[in-house]
Amino acid sequence: MSTASAFNPPPRILMGPGPSGANPRVIRAMGAPLLGHLDPEFLRIMDQCRDMLRRVMRTSNQVTLATPGTGTSGMEAAVMNLVEPGDNAVIGVCGYFGERVAQMAERAGGTVTRVSAPWGSPVSPGAFAGAVREAGKVKLAGIVHAETSTGVQTPVEPFAAIARDAGALLLVDCVTSLGGVPVEVDRWGADAVYSGTQKCLSAPPGVAPITFSERAWSAVRARETPCNSWYLDMSLLEAYWDERRAYHHTAPISMIYALHEALALVLEEGMEARWARHERNGRALQAGLEAMGLTLHAQEGYRLPVLTTVRIPDGVNDAEVRGALLRRNGIEIGGGLGELKGRVWRVGLMGESSTAGNVLLFLSALGRILREQGFRADVRGAVSAAESRLAGD
Amino acid sequence: MSTASAFNPPPRILMGPGPSGANPRVIRAMGAPLLGHLDPEFLRIMDQCRDMLRRVMRTSNQVTLATPGTGTSGMEAAVMNLVEPGDNAVIGVCGYFGERVAQMAERAGGTVTRVSAPWGSPVSPGAFAGAVREAGKVKLAGIVHAETSTGVQTPVEPFAAIARDAGALLLVDCVTSLGGVPVEVDRWGADAVYSGTQKCLSAPPGVAPITFSERAWSAVRARETPCNSWYLDMSLLEAYWDERRAYHHTAPISMIYALHEALALVLEEGMEARWARHERNGRALQAGLEAMGLTLHAQEGYRLPVLTTVRIPDGVNDAEVRGALLRRNGIEIGGGLGELKGRVWRVGLMGESSTAGNVLLFLSALGRILREQGFRADVRGAVSAAESRLAGD
Repeated sequence: MSTASAFNPPPRILMGPGPSGANPRVIRAMGAPLLGHLDPEFLRIMDQCRDMLRRVMRTSNQVTLATPGTGTSGMEAAVMNLVEPGDNAVIGVCGYFGERVAQMAERAGGTVTRVSAPWGSPVSPGAFAGAVREAGKVKLAGIVHAETSTGVQTPVEPFAAIARDAGALLLVDCVTSLGGVPVEVDRWGADAVYSGTQKCLSAPPGVAPITFSERAWSAVRARETPCNSWYLDMSLLEAYWDERRAYHHTAPISMIYALHEALALVLEEGMEARWARHERNGRALQAGLEAMGLTLHAQEGYRLPVLTTVRIPDGVNDAEVRGALLRRNGIEIGGGLGELKGRVWRVGLMGESSTAGNVLLFLSALGRILREQGFRADVRGAVSAAESRLAGD
Repeated sequence: MSTASAFNPPPRILMGPGPSGANPRVIRAMGAPLLGHLDPEFLRIMDQCRDMLRRVMRTSNQVTLATPGTGTSGMEAAVMNLVEPGDNAVIGVCGYFGERVAQMAERAGGTVTRVSAPWGSPVSPGAFAGAVREAGKVKLAGIVHAETSTGVQTPVEPFAAIARDAGALLLVDCVTSLGGVPVEVDRWGADAVYSGTQKCLSAPPGVAPITFSERAWSAVRARETPCNSWYLDMSLLEAYWDERRAYHHTAPISMIYALHEALALVLEEGMEARWARHERNGRALQAGLEAMGLTLHAQEGYRLPVLTTVRIPDGVNDAEVRGALLRRNGIEIGGGLGELKGRVWRVGLMGESSTAGNVLLFLSALGRILREQGFRADVRGAVSAAESRLAGD
């Protein structure tokens, strides 16, 4: 009784690093009748998801599916299936998630070279190329397209060229970019790309889109040892997602429903229009934060529009500000991860959460709270700068 | 547009090996506002889930949580965290899922001894004890409590005694039993127990309850190598679920909501009442199938009430019968897995699907279809036998 009546999650404005808000159509989809995981009607829904995933990821890869876990399960599937014991992997690390990729490659038995950059800058292609040359035969070159811990966007093309020249497979983490900024799997020539649903695709967390190129798939088929993971073994997952329909796991039915509707919404909005919306709102937020007197953390020219890191001013209490935003305004933003803990806030404008209203409300709310904390925030200047950018002045 | 309008999953009566039907309160819970995975309100819901999981699993284990994946993710978490390269594992295999446990233990680098039994009988404790003696120092002894591929229930106590005497950790797969037949983690003295949500707990698939004893947890802490899996590393998962709240993955928020309400429903019904309901309906189904003239596959005395395997009569077409049940009656049942493919049907009466109405409807529907196939099913006798058992005659 007490446990049941206690279940009453309050509404929030989700402007952290994910989950983002979900469209009512996505939420409603989860209320549809449950189907069995081998029901012909469910298989049809899976096929539609697969087609839509290819369109959203801009790829014609056969092996395109959703792993049965949150975004990190996509990362683990990509790394564990492509790295065998003794393989060389070169991983770009300019934040928490690049380091996670590197750790997974080590657990897969790989010999990992990290190419590091300060948390707030992208990895240098020159340094990366040097590391690839030195590492000898490289099986996997990995980078994070949108580093959720720092708000940095790394241009993929130079790394794709380096990987191609070295005959290495290119892994690109697109957890925070897919559906918000251009992800062009085939044009890049990326070999393994994964994402999450709870960022710019704006579905609840629970499944992870992933795609493997023909080259990556050949590497999977040529493995001498089975993948470390049974649950995330791509050969077994693909045998369920393709026409073989071989039982592997009981698919997370309701999450696939949510994914289906989220992808349909992305395609109905149109990829270009969606990217433009994220760009416009993100730049307006950033203009507003700077006009307020705050300092953006990510290096200029490499700032993600969908996730902004802003430095916490001296003398301002991190937890108090985030607590006040949540309590008074129902707004969630994220704190810093790893070495940025206590130093930055992470403000997401992803998917359904990327709206002009959220930009303006957040600037106003944050500015007022900062003033109480003794920071002389220029609230009017911030709102005005953002409003101007939103209107396209 | 076409993709969107195509989304219209039809209602089904889910009587396969899972997913089972879900209570409307569970489905509705997924429609609650999304919270962030570190929101204080969400952490409170996690804590409540944890408490309820302990009550439903009958354990006081600190390490009790839900892994962010379907039932198989619970299996993988249990095996991968407890088996290190070179460890001996003795696994009872009397069906598809025991074999899956064994394969995972091999992927974890373990040396695996399989103790096999025919698919339809339980593993012999005597043979298991012999294998444990011969294997030398055994790290993990594993059995499947409720074998979803055969409908066999294995009494846990003899295996617990064998594991205890050998100083081995006891793993028990309770994917299909938890919430339907007695699972007594502490009374058994089991060290690692996992389940799924989509069976007798009657929530959509997507998270997996798991619990580790103090002994199992000591083994995790004493590992010399990190767990093969990063995503399902129990040390990292526990650090998020306990008061440290260390970020590991973005929890599948809506699935945790569903789990919360499913567990509350189990506790409101009462464990003993719920077990009695599953027992009554399962035995009525089995009596009805036998009265119809069919042969139950699982060995008498070891038949699960929640999942019944029944042999497909000679001359009857497996796919046609299942197709007709689905098309005409909206009833899903399961086909055979592995060596039982084409030889048995698997009929689940789990959670919300375990009702007297489903028993009677299914017997009538199956009987009529079998008669069309030339099998002289005694439909009236079947319904009458089941009705009598349901009424407690």
